[in-house]
Amino acid sequence: MNTTTLTVTGMTCGHCEKAVERAIKQLDPAAEVKADRTQNKVEIKSNQPLTALTAAIQEEGYTVTN
Amino acid sequence: MNTTTLTVTGMTCGHCEKAVERAIKQLDPAAEVKADRTQNKVEIKSNQPLTALTAAIQEEGYTVTN
Repeated sequence: MNTTTLTVTGMTCGHCEKAVERAIKQLDPAAEVKADRTQNKVEIKSNQPLTALTAAIQEEGYTVTN
Repeated sequence: MNTTTLTVTGMTCGHCEKAVERAIKQLDPAAEVKADRTQNKVEIKSNQPLTALTAAIQEEGYTVTN
C-alpha cells in the first residue's frame, strides 16, 4: 500500500483524531491510519487515490493543506 | 426536574459537546442536556444529584469549575 502523510488542520481533540481515522477506514477498511492533532498530521497507508482520502477528511469538516 | 448550568472547560469541538451530552444521558436517560463549548456551559435538566452529574462529565476528561 502507498503511505501518505497529509497535513490536516482543525483537529482539536482526541475525538477529532478518531473522526478522521474513522472516515479513512470507512472509505478503505484495509487502510492503516494514525491521526496526530499535535502535529496536524494524518499518516495513511492505503491504495485509495489521494483525492479520495482528502475528500473523506474534508467531509468531516477538517482542512487538508497538502 | 432540576435545572442546573455547569461551567465546563476543555470542550474544544462539537464531538466534545456530544461526549458530554452522551455521558449525562447515559447516567440519566430522562435528562435533557445541552452543551455549549463557546460558553463553557452545560445546561442539564435532571433529578440526579449534582455530584453524579459532575462526576459523569469529569470521567469524560473535562473540568467542571462550579
